Amino acid sequence: MKSADKHRKIILAATKVFAKKGFFNARISDIAKEAKVADGTIYLYFTNKLDILLSVFAQETEKLIDEVSTLLNAEEDVQKKLVIFISHHLQAMRKNRPLAEVIHIELRQTSKLIREYRSSSFSAYPDIIAAIIAEGQEQGIFRPEIDVELATLALFGALDESSRLWLVNGADLNHATNQLALLFQHAFSLPAASAYSA
Amino acid sequence: MKSADKHRKIILAATKVFAKKGFFNARISDIAKEAKVADGTIYLYFTNKLDILLSVFAQETEKLIDEVSTLLNAEEDVQKKLVIFISHHLQAMRKNRPLAEVIHIELRQTSKLIREYRSSSFSAYPDIIAAIIAEGQEQGIFRPEIDVELATLALFGALDESSRLWLVNGADLNHATNQLALLFQHAFSLPAASAYSA
Repeated sequence: MKSADKHRKIILAATKVFAKKGFFNARISDIAKEAKVADGTIYLYFTNKLDILLSVFAQETEKLIDEVSTLLNAEEDVQKKLVIFISHHLQAMRKNRPLAEVIHIELRQTSKLIREYRSSSFSAYPDIIAAIIAEGQEQGIFRPEIDVELATLALFGALDESSRLWLVNGADLNHATNQLALLFQHAFSLPAASAYSA
Repeated sequence: MKSADKHRKIILAATKVFAKKGFFNARISDIAKEAKVADGTIYLYFTNKLDILLSVFAQETEKLIDEVSTLLNAEEDVQKKLVIFISHHLQAMRKNRPLAEVIHIELRQTSKLIREYRSSSFSAYPDIIAAIIAEGQEQGIFRPEIDVELATLALFGALDESSRLWLVNGADLNHATNQLALLFQHAFSLPAASAYSA
């Protein structure tokens, strides 16, 4: 097995183990078992458990960013871009429950550790929301008085909380996408520009 | 010291210890030390660590609910009620950082455990948001097409994410309150009813 393949395999196994046991309860040996490699092999690729978690985030975040960027680049309308981001995020969280658990739960638990360890590359993902809002403001479609940073937190928080609900009870994906799109198009758009305005 | 006082003292100490060390790293002996009681005393009042955490939530949630309910009962205007809830939540999170850390971080980490253990009384708190939205819809001020449950998750998630930011960098409280009020008044209100609409 090639080195890059083994690295990938360990990250995949770690995502599953962290989701199942939680970061603090998971042991390197659990990850090794899931990846079907020797415990010592893990230490050839990673310094410690936190290093593995950060690599899981980095890889999954990169994938999310690549996928949604491709979709966004093919769209000109900033209101539709907003809907694309919402829809893609909710779909991605539904498709990959272990990833969703890691993002929603472990990211919180370990945020203090991550801050101390090294700055996370995760912020590049919500930065995409910020870019959409700023673009809408520049085009005179979104309200100029909106603070882009806080609006980004508001939308990201709403997505986070809504998709977390599915980890519990599996609500309707299209319904949630439509509802969140409705709320945030109204929240962000000047009245004349809103697709939903009467 | 009376029994109720000791119970309260242990909960207060536990809130601090959980915030500092995290739920999984905190030990009963750390809580006993912080509360200045013997380790064995803790077990007179609580079954285990999770029992203490759930008691912390229950007490702090009750306090939040009591405080904000008093404010809301004194207000008739449903749009102002929305602003009161946003403002009170952000203020409470800022005033009590250990509580905020517990709510934002530990609630996530332990949600699986809590679900298995007993249903949390925490939902009574976001239920207040749901009641405000439903009231606004009944009065013809908020959009009838809004799904109350998802809108509640959206607002609660936005508040959660925004107040979590302060745990990191201490942003301006009034500015955040105004911005979130602006976003959610527009998100929820029919155009003619919105205080911010042109």
